[in-house]
Amino acid sequence: MEMESLLKCMNCGHTTSILQERLFRCPKCSGLYDVQHNIPKRTPQNWMELFDSRPHSAQEPSGVWRFKEWIMPFLPKEDIVTLGEGIVPIVPIGANLKLWLGKPCDAWLIMEGKSPTNSFKDFGMTVLVSVAKAAGIKTLVCASTGDTSASLAAYTGKAGIKCAVILPSGKITPEQILQAKILGATVITLPGSFDDCMQVLQNLVSDYGAYPGNSLNPARIEGHQSTVFLTAQFFGWKFPDWFVNPVGNGSDCSSIGKALRLMKSIGFKAESRILGSQSEAANPLFTSWQKSGGIKTTREKWETFYNPTHVGETIATAMRIGNPVSYLKVIREIIASNGGMTQVSDQEAREAVLACALDGHFVCPQSGVALAGLKRALNDRIIKPRERVVVVSTADGLKFTKPFQHCSEENIINAPDCHTKTIAEILNL
Amino acid sequence: MEMESLLKCMNCGHTTSILQERLFRCPKCSGLYDVQHNIPKRTPQNWMELFDSRPHSAQEPSGVWRFKEWIMPFLPKEDIVTLGEGIVPIVPIGANLKLWLGKPCDAWLIMEGKSPTNSFKDFGMTVLVSVAKAAGIKTLVCASTGDTSASLAAYTGKAGIKCAVILPSGKITPEQILQAKILGATVITLPGSFDDCMQVLQNLVSDYGAYPGNSLNPARIEGHQSTVFLTAQFFGWKFPDWFVNPVGNGSDCSSIGKALRLMKSIGFKAESRILGSQSEAANPLFTSWQKSGGIKTTREKWETFYNPTHVGETIATAMRIGNPVSYLKVIREIIASNGGMTQVSDQEAREAVLACALDGHFVCPQSGVALAGLKRALNDRIIKPRERVVVVSTADGLKFTKPFQHCSEENIINAPDCHTKTIAEILNL
Repeated sequence: MEMESLLKCMNCGHTTSILQERLFRCPKCSGLYDVQHNIPKRTPQNWMELFDSRPHSAQEPSGVWRFKEWIMPFLPKEDIVTLGEGIVPIVPIGANLKLWLGKPCDAWLIMEGKSPTNSFKDFGMTVLVSVAKAAGIKTLVCASTGDTSASLAAYTGKAGIKCAVILPSGKITPEQILQAKILGATVITLPGSFDDCMQVLQNLVSDYGAYPGNSLNPARIEGHQSTVFLTAQFFGWKFPDWFVNPVGNGSDCSSIGKALRLMKSIGFKAESRILGSQSEAANPLFTSWQKSGGIKTTREKWETFYNPTHVGETIATAMRIGNPVSYLKVIREIIASNGGMTQVSDQEAREAVLACALDGHFVCPQSGVALAGLKRALNDRIIKPRERVVVVSTADGLKFTKPFQHCSEENIINAPDCHTKTIAEILNL
Repeated sequence: MEMESLLKCMNCGHTTSILQERLFRCPKCSGLYDVQHNIPKRTPQNWMELFDSRPHSAQEPSGVWRFKEWIMPFLPKEDIVTLGEGIVPIVPIGANLKLWLGKPCDAWLIMEGKSPTNSFKDFGMTVLVSVAKAAGIKTLVCASTGDTSASLAAYTGKAGIKCAVILPSGKITPEQILQAKILGATVITLPGSFDDCMQVLQNLVSDYGAYPGNSLNPARIEGHQSTVFLTAQFFGWKFPDWFVNPVGNGSDCSSIGKALRLMKSIGFKAESRILGSQSEAANPLFTSWQKSGGIKTTREKWETFYNPTHVGETIATAMRIGNPVSYLKVIREIIASNGGMTQVSDQEAREAVLACALDGHFVCPQSGVALAGLKRALNDRIIKPRERVVVVSTADGLKFTKPFQHCSEENIINAPDCHTKTIAEILNL
């Protein structure tokens, strides 16, 4: 086995073993951990040749583990738990979305909703569950009703590891848990609040040897780096001017930034900037960024101005997060990339989803927040005309149909009779 | 422009221009058309090198058009309408499904549900709409409530071509049309039956210049051939012993067979056999195959015994087809590949979906019919132990949740209190 990757506290520098850690908060200062690898030394040319020699094939069925040397180099191959994640289209935006954006730009979507469980979570979960398998874990637990629990259920199922989802009784809908249940999660409801569930989960981890599937675990960040690796490879190892992504807990900002810093340190011209987009209903990172100076802020200023916010209602339900656990990582990476933040209304996010759908791609409301963020940034001249932009589409539209259900009943044309001539006239034929 | 591909009647040999044809039935004998290409001459080695030089990239964003020379060689590149289709995982089956199958085999799933509109229809629709664009078509029409209308809406949207879906008033649910509506289709309801809709559609095509998006159009078959091309390339240009696919209208059998014959004619060892799997509720091809001699039948015998059947209820709603339009192609291709047919019950299809989900892949009931067909064929010794099998998963489970909605309410564990010890005991921690 190669030298094991370590966890290092981003605040005080304390290090610990990635295979031993369970709580994923520094015991000395409660800081967040980064994963530190022992990556072999090669030239950029060597790396490009290595990864280009691994197209999608029976030998390399995953678009995440194609980049294993950058993601979790020490992990024994037999511990990899893969479902074929990272094999996703990257597509140019179409004419309707261009029209809606109103300004010229060379924008592409990376369709991470075409993952095994239809959300970007799979990019990270394949790594978390693989590390858990290497660590000999028998039970993973989480407390999400959405994409995280579905993804966790899928990967633990594949690994033969038990998975439990702990939820407050009477506060969940059947739709919220259908996917996780079918994928084999044990669902336990408690007679209490969501906070009670989180407390029980914490106790199961600290006192009973359970392993948390939540986003404090930085192994997930490592997998999400593939967004950058796949994109760079797709463009012949050229980098877009911007990555734009929706920011809830901010794991994508953290991972895109980490991947860019890694590639720069190796010698790539990885000069992409990161734009984080939040919903106006849950905007702690945008608000503090703006108050602290906007595009001219510094890491220190932004951290000083940061405060959790109350969250309101939004169609981007997966982003209703008033205090992102990894906000310090988001701030670090956006500043390091010379990037920025924006925020959008539900109306803008909805318009973006509908324009994108007219071009053939039905994406989730969170992807709509990212696309609408691109429009704002073009209007605010943060993103310049004709720059190349890659927008992260985090989940498939079919996972989040509720905000668009009215579409199926509006504007249906009820013909008065069955004469072909009538229909031809309706269609202007 | 290279020499245009032609349509040739598989019955009488009459040929016509693919860009001029609208009705897609031979005017002389009502036979089905095949597409005939003028494919450049190269050695298998040359072809492998050509296609291996086109990994997923900004130059080649589609896994279907990667094989353009085999799919529609004459088509001008500027007429290609792509949404990044054919970039789909191919994954080995997991431990739970293996256990359920009960016999050892080397089975893989090609996850065609990870297509732009979440079904395999996109493989064919990208070609149909591209040909329509090259032919200067302004309006496409269809009469499907399901995967076909969603796929047609997506590709016409991308192409800037109008798309109309014609449906019987009062006989459709909002869920059935949500995706097509969001993707921009015009939905017209008629005060009549589904047959009335089909008649109006036919008239719009013959008398008003509309273009049909239905499965008579053999351009779709050309795109579905990529199932074989992608699979062969994935396995280093080796072929599985079997392709197993669900048979509704049978477009996949037709295209897999055509692709295998093409590759054989070029010099590849494309000796895969085709197993078609039907639901017991809609089994005209299985019944006639069995009555005419089963695995020992001939093309002539099978055609003689073929009769349309009445269809019953099944969870595989996309396969409720009692008289597949292209049944003659299915028979031709299964016989040519030395293949066979099977049928399965809803119970078996359901069990297959649930076993597959426990391994992390939630597939549609039609994919369940294919997986259950594999089990039957292993039991009947049609497929031998340890043969390599590729099963076509035609759509994502999220498109067909209804038969599994009960899962989200069954076996939820309601804990009596919020004590960690209680939950730890439930989880055997």
